[in-house]
Amino acid sequence: MERDILVIGAGVLGLSSAYHLKRRNPDKRVLVIDQLGGPGQGNTAKSAGGYRNVFASETNYLLADSTIDWFLHLQGDLGYDLKLTRIGYLWLLGEGRHGQLEGAYEKMRRMGVELRTLGREELGRLIPDLVTGLEGDEEAELMGLEPVDVGVLGVKCGTVNTDALARCYESMFLKLGGEVKYNTAAKGLILRPEEELGIPGEPFIWQERNVVGAETSRGEIRAGTTVVAAGAWSERLLDPLGFDALMRPKKRVMFVFRDPRLRGLMAVEGLNEHGVLPLTHMPGLKIYIKPDLTEGSFWMACADDFGRRFGLEDDPQPESALYTDNIYPALVKYLPCFKDVRPVNMWAGQRAINSYDTIPVVAPAPGMIYVGAATGNGILKSDALGRVVAALHAGEEEAMLYGDRPFRVADLGIHTRDVEMETFRI
Amino acid sequence: MERDILVIGAGVLGLSSAYHLKRRNPDKRVLVIDQLGGPGQGNTAKSAGGYRNVFASETNYLLADSTIDWFLHLQGDLGYDLKLTRIGYLWLLGEGRHGQLEGAYEKMRRMGVELRTLGREELGRLIPDLVTGLEGDEEAELMGLEPVDVGVLGVKCGTVNTDALARCYESMFLKLGGEVKYNTAAKGLILRPEEELGIPGEPFIWQERNVVGAETSRGEIRAGTTVVAAGAWSERLLDPLGFDALMRPKKRVMFVFRDPRLRGLMAVEGLNEHGVLPLTHMPGLKIYIKPDLTEGSFWMACADDFGRRFGLEDDPQPESALYTDNIYPALVKYLPCFKDVRPVNMWAGQRAINSYDTIPVVAPAPGMIYVGAATGNGILKSDALGRVVAALHAGEEEAMLYGDRPFRVADLGIHTRDVEMETFRI
Repeated sequence: MERDILVIGAGVLGLSSAYHLKRRNPDKRVLVIDQLGGPGQGNTAKSAGGYRNVFASETNYLLADSTIDWFLHLQGDLGYDLKLTRIGYLWLLGEGRHGQLEGAYEKMRRMGVELRTLGREELGRLIPDLVTGLEGDEEAELMGLEPVDVGVLGVKCGTVNTDALARCYESMFLKLGGEVKYNTAAKGLILRPEEELGIPGEPFIWQERNVVGAETSRGEIRAGTTVVAAGAWSERLLDPLGFDALMRPKKRVMFVFRDPRLRGLMAVEGLNEHGVLPLTHMPGLKIYIKPDLTEGSFWMACADDFGRRFGLEDDPQPESALYTDNIYPALVKYLPCFKDVRPVNMWAGQRAINSYDTIPVVAPAPGMIYVGAATGNGILKSDALGRVVAALHAGEEEAMLYGDRPFRVADLGIHTRDVEMETFRI
Repeated sequence: MERDILVIGAGVLGLSSAYHLKRRNPDKRVLVIDQLGGPGQGNTAKSAGGYRNVFASETNYLLADSTIDWFLHLQGDLGYDLKLTRIGYLWLLGEGRHGQLEGAYEKMRRMGVELRTLGREELGRLIPDLVTGLEGDEEAELMGLEPVDVGVLGVKCGTVNTDALARCYESMFLKLGGEVKYNTAAKGLILRPEEELGIPGEPFIWQERNVVGAETSRGEIRAGTTVVAAGAWSERLLDPLGFDALMRPKKRVMFVFRDPRLRGLMAVEGLNEHGVLPLTHMPGLKIYIKPDLTEGSFWMACADDFGRRFGLEDDPQPESALYTDNIYPALVKYLPCFKDVRPVNMWAGQRAINSYDTIPVVAPAPGMIYVGAATGNGILKSDALGRVVAALHAGEEEAMLYGDRPFRVADLGIHTRDVEMETFRI
């Protein structure tokens, strides 16, 4: 089988790349393959679907803010129901950490990020279920928990239905004449010499070599350009080529709660138009809570970093002990409404963590483009990254992000990398 | 067992770090452990032991140039016989690639790198065995081999005996009262909470966590600071912590030749004081040839990158087909004296490749310092890296490299990284 462009991975990054490639190359035959049975069924489906433009790195801000505008355009102008819910992002912080972030806030405000700062008293009034002052709670002090002094609310933030988003990209791509094949696993990339000599053992080290497609579970697929958008699985395809995916996969567990005791968190006035708790990051715990309005449930993700292992797993499993022994004892100190509440569902996904600079990679190799290392932010930067992929394929120096915002393609490359480090890290 | 500082890895990077740590902290108990039976027996022993100050990145130049000066001091002033042999490095290039490097040469000359440029005719005269003009050789053209138009000779370059270097560091370290334990494999790092509560399941996600030592094949070793200098093996220790070693291991095969037909390469006048071929990089082949004066042999390393797999191997094996099928057909076009010459010895080592910027990493985590990702340049930057490790341990912003050259410690870190990208890449 032969196509002009083969995209490996039908997650949001792969589908966004495929859509923009097909849009810009209507006559080219663009094929997306995925090992799973439908669009966005891998880690896209396991993500919380949060979006935010709250980044202090101009690189991150441009990628995210333009993608959010595109989501709004898809839903508002083009009629795709992405279930965008602008509930805001709320970071709860102790005074110490808050002070260290002053420079980041200033930078963000200068770029146009809308932030609102809430004091402890205001937080306590708006979120009656939240315990801000842990002073005097000996157990909390023993646990090293810090009181909540400040809340930082990101306004242009909320949630998107990741399944709807993946299906939207797939549908737009198919309408343009694109092609998808599910249940088709890429087993390996095919590397061939530029000039084949027909001698066994090619390619030799002195030959120019190109990726010319992939070996798949349904046979060989040749392509002029192969786009690797396989997320956490990318290393399985790229390691054999000696091409560094510049990320390490890390498990992230999601817990779901649906319990009448949590109803107070579904009725929080003054922080968003929906009158619910924003997507809220708890102080120092590396966890966040996301209300899901359609289901009346809460999702909780734990993204603890130092101490949680890297490594690709075929079928990552959630550990309920992570909630009961780890998260719960701290969580109930801040939100006593969680007392005795247990998750009704849980699953585990994998994020592709770029520890260097946490910013995604879009990089070429002969015959190939790699997009990934999005560090858990792939969905919320998906549209911009798809446009950068298409611009790189076209040989352009600048990609035009949605809203006519230019972006230097080489900045997300490897040897040409020039990104602004992210300083808003919690 | 308990020590103040535990260094994991008795390669040159680990021993240099240990020596500088002990030198600066004479009262601290510093212990080096290694899975093998002596100093520098891992990939240090498998390296070619080349040194060069030819780098266009100021970061690389400082690390390498100061390390070379230290080697000269060790041998010249302190009487350690490192078998330093200043044979120079010679890069053979086609005109196209040479032109692209103009900016890099200029930068290097400005920093003080001594370079000599040789034209094709001069190369042919000085190295009679070298075929520079491949024009008219149909087979060579079919193979895509480029003629040799230019030679770039780095003067402050040569070779060091890696075994002698490792033993020198070990001996200086032991003289200061340092301690080494061989045949002691680190099985894993120990992560404990800052404030132990004595509850099963610690450390919990809400606890500050520190590395407090390592589980080894000889039991637990606790330490205030653990230095991970395990080279290509570092990921085995760091992955479980979710700390990215920022490198991927890649096999590098070394072939050794000892043959009367090569004697012309041992008699090359005008390029160095030893009257031998410099350590010479062949054009476009990703191989280099190093004369070994003590043994009258030639070493040849193949560092082909795109197409050669990443991945740690317990016992990497050399493939003789890499020479016979891959290197040989191209090599004899440039150096016909290799005709029918076969390697008398071969082995495989592993390099820790940092694909991101190719510059080493010295980065802290709680209770820990990681030094690595040296991309095949660990030995030639070893002394500077050891000093950076010791400065980081001391909490200093600047390390003083040998020759009173200041170096900002955070520049080699991860989130604080600020290195000048290397533009001299062949």
